Amino acid sequence: MITPRTLKGFRDYLPAVMIPRESMMQIGREVFRSFGYAPIDTPVLEYFEILTGKGSDETDRQMFHFTDNGGREVGMRFDLTVPLARFAAQHTHQLGTPFKRYHIAPVFRGENPQAGRYREFVQADFDTIGTTSVVADVETLTVINTLLERLGLRRFTIRVNNRAILSGLLDQLGLAEHTSAVLRCLDKLDKIGVDAVDKELRQSAGITTEQATQVLRLAQCKNASDSVGAADSAGAAESVFQTLQDLSMGHEGMAAGIERLQQVYSGTLAAGVPADRLRIDVSIARGLDYYTGIIFETILDELPAIGSVCSGGRYDNLAGLYTKQHLPGIGGSLGLDRLVAAMEQLKLLPQASTPAEVLVTQFNEAHRDDYLALATHLRRGGLRVELYPDAKKLKAQLKYAAEKGFRVAVIAGDDEWQRGVVQVKDLHSRQSDDVAYAADAPEELVSAIASCLEQTRGAG
Amino acid sequence: MITPRTLKGFRDYLPAVMIPRESMMQIGREVFRSFGYAPIDTPVLEYFEILTGKGSDETDRQMFHFTDNGGREVGMRFDLTVPLARFAAQHTHQLGTPFKRYHIAPVFRGENPQAGRYREFVQADFDTIGTTSVVADVETLTVINTLLERLGLRRFTIRVNNRAILSGLLDQLGLAEHTSAVLRCLDKLDKIGVDAVDKELRQSAGITTEQATQVLRLAQCKNASDSVGAADSAGAAESVFQTLQDLSMGHEGMAAGIERLQQVYSGTLAAGVPADRLRIDVSIARGLDYYTGIIFETILDELPAIGSVCSGGRYDNLAGLYTKQHLPGIGGSLGLDRLVAAMEQLKLLPQASTPAEVLVTQFNEAHRDDYLALATHLRRGGLRVELYPDAKKLKAQLKYAAEKGFRVAVIAGDDEWQRGVVQVKDLHSRQSDDVAYAADAPEELVSAIASCLEQTRGAG
Repeated sequence: MITPRTLKGFRDYLPAVMIPRESMMQIGREVFRSFGYAPIDTPVLEYFEILTGKGSDETDRQMFHFTDNGGREVGMRFDLTVPLARFAAQHTHQLGTPFKRYHIAPVFRGENPQAGRYREFVQADFDTIGTTSVVADVETLTVINTLLERLGLRRFTIRVNNRAILSGLLDQLGLAEHTSAVLRCLDKLDKIGVDAVDKELRQSAGITTEQATQVLRLAQCKNASDSVGAADSAGAAESVFQTLQDLSMGHEGMAAGIERLQQVYSGTLAAGVPADRLRIDVSIARGLDYYTGIIFETILDELPAIGSVCSGGRYDNLAGLYTKQHLPGIGGSLGLDRLVAAMEQLKLLPQASTPAEVLVTQFNEAHRDDYLALATHLRRGGLRVELYPDAKKLKAQLKYAAEKGFRVAVIAGDDEWQRGVVQVKDLHSRQSDDVAYAADAPEELVSAIASCLEQTRGAG
Repeated sequence: MITPRTLKGFRDYLPAVMIPRESMMQIGREVFRSFGYAPIDTPVLEYFEILTGKGSDETDRQMFHFTDNGGREVGMRFDLTVPLARFAAQHTHQLGTPFKRYHIAPVFRGENPQAGRYREFVQADFDTIGTTSVVADVETLTVINTLLERLGLRRFTIRVNNRAILSGLLDQLGLAEHTSAVLRCLDKLDKIGVDAVDKELRQSAGITTEQATQVLRLAQCKNASDSVGAADSAGAAESVFQTLQDLSMGHEGMAAGIERLQQVYSGTLAAGVPADRLRIDVSIARGLDYYTGIIFETILDELPAIGSVCSGGRYDNLAGLYTKQHLPGIGGSLGLDRLVAAMEQLKLLPQASTPAEVLVTQFNEAHRDDYLALATHLRRGGLRVELYPDAKKLKAQLKYAAEKGFRVAVIAGDDEWQRGVVQVKDLHSRQSDDVAYAADAPEELVSAIASCLEQTRGAG
């Protein structure tokens, strides 16, 4: 006999987690669609040459790849950005620009498993390609706010920066070539603190003490994390912009970067994102060299340790490795499975392992067709209904209903069938009522169950 | 530069196909949930030993498999049944029975690509495990009817058989050991005809002329395909059951098989499936030895050549290779991507490459924040709205709207902003109306657009 087990670092999703996980994906699709992002899909497998060398050394090392039966070198995608670049190069002549797409799909990384991290996980990416517009930047941030709100989250912070500001400063300081090294140092600011980063900047990036000081002054520009309320936050942002302008000393690149950030900030407020969820933070670097403009990350205020649940930024040229067409754009990537884990921790996930609300119990096989017709009538009335498959004892069927999290049981034995009624049992209050039912007039039963569900929903 | 291309046999889904494909998956989820099937998910990658030898020689040959970086032999799933068996063996002690699950996910087969067949495709499987009940059989068939109806299909036939009937006959004839060989022959009935199957039965399965005649008489029992209307179909089914009973000559196994098929047929009608979509057809064999009871396949009447879009059956023991627990059940597998291709051919797919209905055009960057606020108001009113990202000429923006399939454009230039109105343009009739709009009172605009969409929906 073969031991039934999943591979190291992989997992099964059982109904109790999969039900909310699927709802979250559906909310994601609804929000993306409401902004005009269109869905696409690409294969899990790509030519190895498409995938390799596109992320980092780490993603290369972690990639699942092999030679297929046709002798082709193939790999499993490790993100949705590289496939998007390939897709855009291949199809943009047909699709035109601007092009807004979302893509919700599993990606694969052979990293060492750790708490809450798996080798297969779902990402939800959304991008606007072929435009440098402020509107695209603003809508990217607005999508995040709408999405997390729809998921029931209230306390989160979207940290926003414009990488052009730092690039401008480095340019001004004659340090443009050191950009990557400086970014790598600044990325550690939260972890190792100002002094350590200062030291590292002067050592490894080989820049002067004065230059390091200026870089660090810039990187520490943010509205205070303890400002409470939307009005305060907006005020704090104004003062950050003022400081930035002072630091720029009229340098064109920096000034343009600051103006852009101001436009995005103001637009995002106009689009309805509360100011206390939006934080200007010039320390954000977001590793990849690939970003050139607005960059952002999203922290759950109650769970900062799990890291960003939605990050991304503006890039200057998406698909330069595959096409001569210049494709600027901006995109975000929602770590859906990380968010599922977070919401589990915050107890925001509903507790049920059935998607149906109503269990129709069954007693007498002679009435099988009547039970089947009854279940169909209830479903046609808009209810989600499971018919217990076997004519077992009521106690066993109600135990099943309780374990799975059904909210209403419909009970009809010989006596009820004869009297033209069924019992509707509220599984929260354990109260039962007889309700009239006939196969040619199921409306009364449908509305009795619907109102019972309405009540338990209020109570639950 | 690297050529942007997908692997042989794989494909990208562009928005025009992905939008309806995603809607179909969502309809699938809604229908499965309405019957109490719960979602699960399993990894794309499994231990090779879990997957190999579980399907056929063909699936073994076509499997994508390799050694991972940790030296493990791994494979990509080629169906959702083998992962379900592994899953059930691993988790049933926790989940209990009966257990109803659905699983919508991609599977991978390195078969030679042909028209409409790809090496990665989505299956939607639903199973009821841990019960031998007639109700589970009936609901499986009822799900198919509900699902295809919800997709807008009307003309399809669910062909149903009970493999126990043929097994009973073979047992009676002393041919029980020849079951697989006989099934393989009968599977060709539609393709090569009665005489050729007769010959093959007598030759390769090594059974007598008389035995072959009896097997073929049985296999030809079906209600006539030209019976029109539900009443006729039910009548024809009655006469099929009569013929079957005559053929059974009191043999217990056959009689039990026939009675079961009658119960399932009657239950399925009681559950609301129209009789003219349900066809008793004893010739159906459905390859795999694995099925032991009810088996079924679903043919689109207008496209019989594409084969069955939803097939499955009852099995006696799902997970015998992984656990001693005896798990009978019944399940169906919907070939979702095959169905997408069929609906494309039947012109049942909507023609749009945007999921949004409303395009808000943009003219003057000085009003950027006003446009952003306007779009947010419309979305909060329940509309799906894209804001064109750049302040281009109106003509270019309307061309974009027409190409993507937007239905309403909202147009506001300096003049409109000053007058406190916006133009609502119906992109079908090309008619425009001025509608009052103020940021603090967007309701009139929301309802004007909603009613405009209502009208074009009627016209479309």
